[in-house]
Amino acid sequence: MAEESAQRTLEFTATPLPTGARTPPVEAAEPPAPPGRRRVTAVELAKQQREISVSEFFTKNRHLLGFDNPRKALLTAIKEAVDNSLDACEEAGILPEVKVIVKEVRKEERYRVIVEDNGPGIVAKQVPRVFGKLLYGSKFHRLKMSRGQQGIGISAAAMYGQLTTGQPAVIISKIGRGKPAMRYELMIDTKKNEPRVISEAECDWNGDHGTRVEIELEARFQRGRQSVDAYLEQTAITNPHVRMLYTPPDGDPREFPRATTELPPEPKVIKPHPHGIELGMLMTMLEDTKGRNIRSFLTHEFSRVSGRVAENILAAAKIEPSARPSRIARQDAETLYNAIQASKIMAPPSDCVVPIGEDLLLKGVKKELEADFYAAVSRPPSVYRGNPFAIEAAVAYGGKVPDEGPVRVYRFANRVPLLYQQSACAITRAISSISWRPYGLSQPSGSLPMGPAIVVVHMASVWVPFTSESKEAIAHYPEIIKEIKLALQACGRKMSLHIKRRRRDAEAERKRSYIEKYIPHIGIGLREILALSQREEEGIVERLTEMLHKSRK
Amino acid sequence: MAEESAQRTLEFTATPLPTGARTPPVEAAEPPAPPGRRRVTAVELAKQQREISVSEFFTKNRHLLGFDNPRKALLTAIKEAVDNSLDACEEAGILPEVKVIVKEVRKEERYRVIVEDNGPGIVAKQVPRVFGKLLYGSKFHRLKMSRGQQGIGISAAAMYGQLTTGQPAVIISKIGRGKPAMRYELMIDTKKNEPRVISEAECDWNGDHGTRVEIELEARFQRGRQSVDAYLEQTAITNPHVRMLYTPPDGDPREFPRATTELPPEPKVIKPHPHGIELGMLMTMLEDTKGRNIRSFLTHEFSRVSGRVAENILAAAKIEPSARPSRIARQDAETLYNAIQASKIMAPPSDCVVPIGEDLLLKGVKKELEADFYAAVSRPPSVYRGNPFAIEAAVAYGGKVPDEGPVRVYRFANRVPLLYQQSACAITRAISSISWRPYGLSQPSGSLPMGPAIVVVHMASVWVPFTSESKEAIAHYPEIIKEIKLALQACGRKMSLHIKRRRRDAEAERKRSYIEKYIPHIGIGLREILALSQREEEGIVERLTEMLHKSRK
Repeated sequence: MAEESAQRTLEFTATPLPTGARTPPVEAAEPPAPPGRRRVTAVELAKQQREISVSEFFTKNRHLLGFDNPRKALLTAIKEAVDNSLDACEEAGILPEVKVIVKEVRKEERYRVIVEDNGPGIVAKQVPRVFGKLLYGSKFHRLKMSRGQQGIGISAAAMYGQLTTGQPAVIISKIGRGKPAMRYELMIDTKKNEPRVISEAECDWNGDHGTRVEIELEARFQRGRQSVDAYLEQTAITNPHVRMLYTPPDGDPREFPRATTELPPEPKVIKPHPHGIELGMLMTMLEDTKGRNIRSFLTHEFSRVSGRVAENILAAAKIEPSARPSRIARQDAETLYNAIQASKIMAPPSDCVVPIGEDLLLKGVKKELEADFYAAVSRPPSVYRGNPFAIEAAVAYGGKVPDEGPVRVYRFANRVPLLYQQSACAITRAISSISWRPYGLSQPSGSLPMGPAIVVVHMASVWVPFTSESKEAIAHYPEIIKEIKLALQACGRKMSLHIKRRRRDAEAERKRSYIEKYIPHIGIGLREILALSQREEEGIVERLTEMLHKSRK
Repeated sequence: MAEESAQRTLEFTATPLPTGARTPPVEAAEPPAPPGRRRVTAVELAKQQREISVSEFFTKNRHLLGFDNPRKALLTAIKEAVDNSLDACEEAGILPEVKVIVKEVRKEERYRVIVEDNGPGIVAKQVPRVFGKLLYGSKFHRLKMSRGQQGIGISAAAMYGQLTTGQPAVIISKIGRGKPAMRYELMIDTKKNEPRVISEAECDWNGDHGTRVEIELEARFQRGRQSVDAYLEQTAITNPHVRMLYTPPDGDPREFPRATTELPPEPKVIKPHPHGIELGMLMTMLEDTKGRNIRSFLTHEFSRVSGRVAENILAAAKIEPSARPSRIARQDAETLYNAIQASKIMAPPSDCVVPIGEDLLLKGVKKELEADFYAAVSRPPSVYRGNPFAIEAAVAYGGKVPDEGPVRVYRFANRVPLLYQQSACAITRAISSISWRPYGLSQPSGSLPMGPAIVVVHMASVWVPFTSESKEAIAHYPEIIKEIKLALQACGRKMSLHIKRRRRDAEAERKRSYIEKYIPHIGIGLREILALSQREEEGIVERLTEMLHKSRK
């Protein structure tokens, strides 16, 4: 390796340029510093090198976390807190009940956000790090479907509050009957990315367990699209088992009742699928494993690798089943990797993905959207880069759905509404790439279709590939786009039947009304021409009407 | 604070719902776990909480750093290495000379990227962290215009190489005559975000100082837009003082010669401007300062705060100039913050921003783009969120510039070409929001104008607000968009004179050719009608031609 690379260096410096001139050796003779410029040495430059903490990084780049502007900051803070509440309740097996309160502290400038749940609570000693340290959490190091993924969101919200208002986040948590509720005031030491506990004390709590987060932040409260209201309304669609109570700063409290009292089944944690990992990752796993030999490494650390599959892989790679993983890491990792890629291995199990299901999705949609027609489709799980995922889609058509411009798109990932960056999302791409005319909607080429419809798409996965830390859009994996299209086409077919029937009915209605309008005139005409009695006329008109109605069918 | 918040809790739980029913206390009576679900306690959940290293985070989310796909990965790796080379040379006062070599290791799948410069080199003990640790560098903790900002890029490239090929990055660096060149093979321990030195040895180096980075990675080499070639061509436009030698995997080496041997002036480091910081940041600075009193804190840690300005701010805030900063941090930070915001303070100094300049930008554009007409404009510095920035723009029109579809847009930030996410960029937004018809280009409403033109925009700033870590698009700050528009409108006016002149010339040419075509026929006609001699005819035709040519002016 060392030799090979040294050789390349020589080869490179000897490469002739096309002009025929040889590449001059770089700075063979040291020219003087340019006029007015002093030469600075590497030693002087080295003094400025420093470590950067991840919270310093995100303070300076907070738009990456969804805190671009005051309006979005409010939504993002609430979203992160509610996501955490729902994840915690579901993981603990508790039917979630969440309160969201937004209070105005200084007119249209500063707000206090409170999110309270009936979840399991958080053990006291972890509260500071969960809310006061970025990149800390339980969800990153496992493959399990959940709303949170990174361990950044809620601490980032607390950090943004601190940055813009100087106020600590206030957390209350109680973990069970007989345990005291603990109240913390927390700041983040952004230089170190560590929590600073301002105060810690027992306090009252109304109930057995739960968590309450309170953050003051520079924000703007507005209604409409991309608002807190829209976020909660859409959350209610994909979380029919959740009850939410919402108190906006400017109006009456609002309840989002449950549509079911059944918790969704708990998603299973899975191990990585062999086809989803990269060479470098395989090497790290080989080094870190507790497996004594390569065979047990393969069968224990991956999903879908039976003893038989492991033996086939190892035979193809010409590796002894008893070989030590750490030795393979250094010597034969690539051979092993290629053998894995070339092996047929069963797709990952799908019980790690819990879709909402057609019935409940339909219930959720009907509860929140008033339309004439609804359809929902839940696709069987599929796989991208070794990660199982499932796509569900629903369409609401007609009724009170607005009939101007393009259809509305409601996007969801692991039951969380995505309100920003619609145009960057795989869901939007999939919708636009379908031809909607056969399904009865007009469509400018390459764009969203037009008409009185709301298109709902949900992606459930052990790992949702977002395009940014703020989790606003799904990356364009072809496998994902394909599944979304299949789900939407199935909805589209159902919708087109409805639209066709509706058009046929409308057409029939139009013909019927023509007939009913003109028949009396025809009657009068006939009577005059044929000198009929009123009775005769009525008989003829009746038969005529009947014939005409038959003819329009 | 504590009391106030506790009071709010009570108020909240007493808020009546509009239905008239009181909000039920959350989980007052503990219901049983739903069927089939076991209750999990906070203590059990706590066991899964873990710290996540920033390199683990970015390994899983590597698309955030520009490693979405093999083609982009190749470009990103080269870009990060070249950016670092140019920054280092310029900071050290060395006229940069950079070699870029791309070698195919496995057909269309795996490549080796080599970037070598004549820069100051890197002191041995820092090489491992500069290339093997994310969030480590000299550029984050200062306000100075440079290509790199975050201390992520080059380590991320090495990490991506390691992940996809298992190969270490190879770094050679020499920091001066008489010092040995050192060669390192480095891997990143992603669990800890720390470098792992595989080998370390002295080696040969052709010259006095410089750095050479070699990374093997999964990649795809393609030409065209968004390619390595396009990146280097555009880099040559905005860096006319740089010489680059490029060896692609599939063809002849190529040289990008210099257009000037003068280094740009060195940008100054500035302190933050008081109007650009937030309350939370002010509080951190108050706590961390070495200033003994608040007056010296203000005058030493900010730009544009003289003794007089500091006194005015403190008088408005009713704070004693001799007060200890740490006390203010706890008690009066917000009062101080408001007084700062309300004070008139001179705009930040502009020598921290070094634009390319109209002449050199024009030279760069002419060197790389063949057109009929060129114009360049360099705007005076302006300020967004306390950060000085300057916008420059150029237009190349006609000649060999393709005449189909929308104009081409070349975007630059601190002299670095931005090749991805064009539609998300403030530059694109600014171009589309200008009305280009008065300047002679057609334009579909709200879109880029059409025609044979290339539009070049450069933003120079101490801090460029990118929309993602991969630094592909500039965020939509209104101040930035406004400056871009002003620069482009100035270019547009110059271009429109050219386009009008060209149209007028074309019109004149058309008339002239008509006259010359028909005059002989008129001559023959006149001779026949008037029975002129050939001589008389020639005289008349000559006078007639003259009169006609005059009339078309």
